Amino acid sequence: MTQPDRAHHPEEPVSPEVERLVTDIIGRVADKWTLLVLEALEEHGELRFTAIGREVEGISQKMLTQTLRQMERDGLVIRTVHPVIPPKVEYRLTEMGHSLGYAFCGVWGWAQTNHAAIVAARARFDTRKAG
Amino acid sequence: MTQPDRAHHPEEPVSPEVERLVTDIIGRVADKWTLLVLEALEEHGELRFTAIGREVEGISQKMLTQTLRQMERDGLVIRTVHPVIPPKVEYRLTEMGHSLGYAFCGVWGWAQTNHAAIVAARARFDTRKAG
Repeated sequence: MTQPDRAHHPEEPVSPEVERLVTDIIGRVADKWTLLVLEALEEHGELRFTAIGREVEGISQKMLTQTLRQMERDGLVIRTVHPVIPPKVEYRLTEMGHSLGYAFCGVWGWAQTNHAAIVAARARFDTRKAG
Repeated sequence: MTQPDRAHHPEEPVSPEVERLVTDIIGRVADKWTLLVLEALEEHGELRFTAIGREVEGISQKMLTQTLRQMERDGLVIRTVHPVIPPKVEYRLTEMGHSLGYAFCGVWGWAQTNHAAIVAARARFDTRKAG
């Protein structure tokens, strides 16, 4: 993390402050729950809290609240409170949220391409450790 | 996560098993520490455990051990024990590890492009909540 000309972006030298900020942001968005919430909203458009919870298997209510709040704070998600009774709260991606979803495309594609190799690697590792 | 034709890859319908597996893999690799270890190894090539710890600011020894072990199990990292005294253990990326680093390029690029917008969004959010 010290060299500004990291392998991926040799053409874009960045200042240490930007480097730190980018690392911080990556640390925030490179999070399983953020990514899965992003996917759910990308796929379905605007969703209510409970609907997102149904889409993102295994997420707790507390973690979903926290994830959505951080995504809203980072400008990835817009939270709309509809003035009806009972109040209806919906979440949708901002343009920046969509662009992050698009950036993550490569990772989904990678996982789809490599899942068989990963399963094989795990089996080899487990056999080696058991043997 | 239920529709096979997610927005990102409408051209690639996938089976529910592959879908689950891919979501599981994404959940594993979309992890701050995995990503930062990946970056450190991408940048510096082969590194010893302690050197990785120095590169990845804030990671505990326990978390680094766990992250490297999972990355080795997933076939992303090769661990080499050199038979010297004291034993020297080094880690480097496999070809699959490099390809994941490459897939994450888009996310680093996204963070570099959007960091100012994120800082502005956070400031707006914090002002709104305080007001």
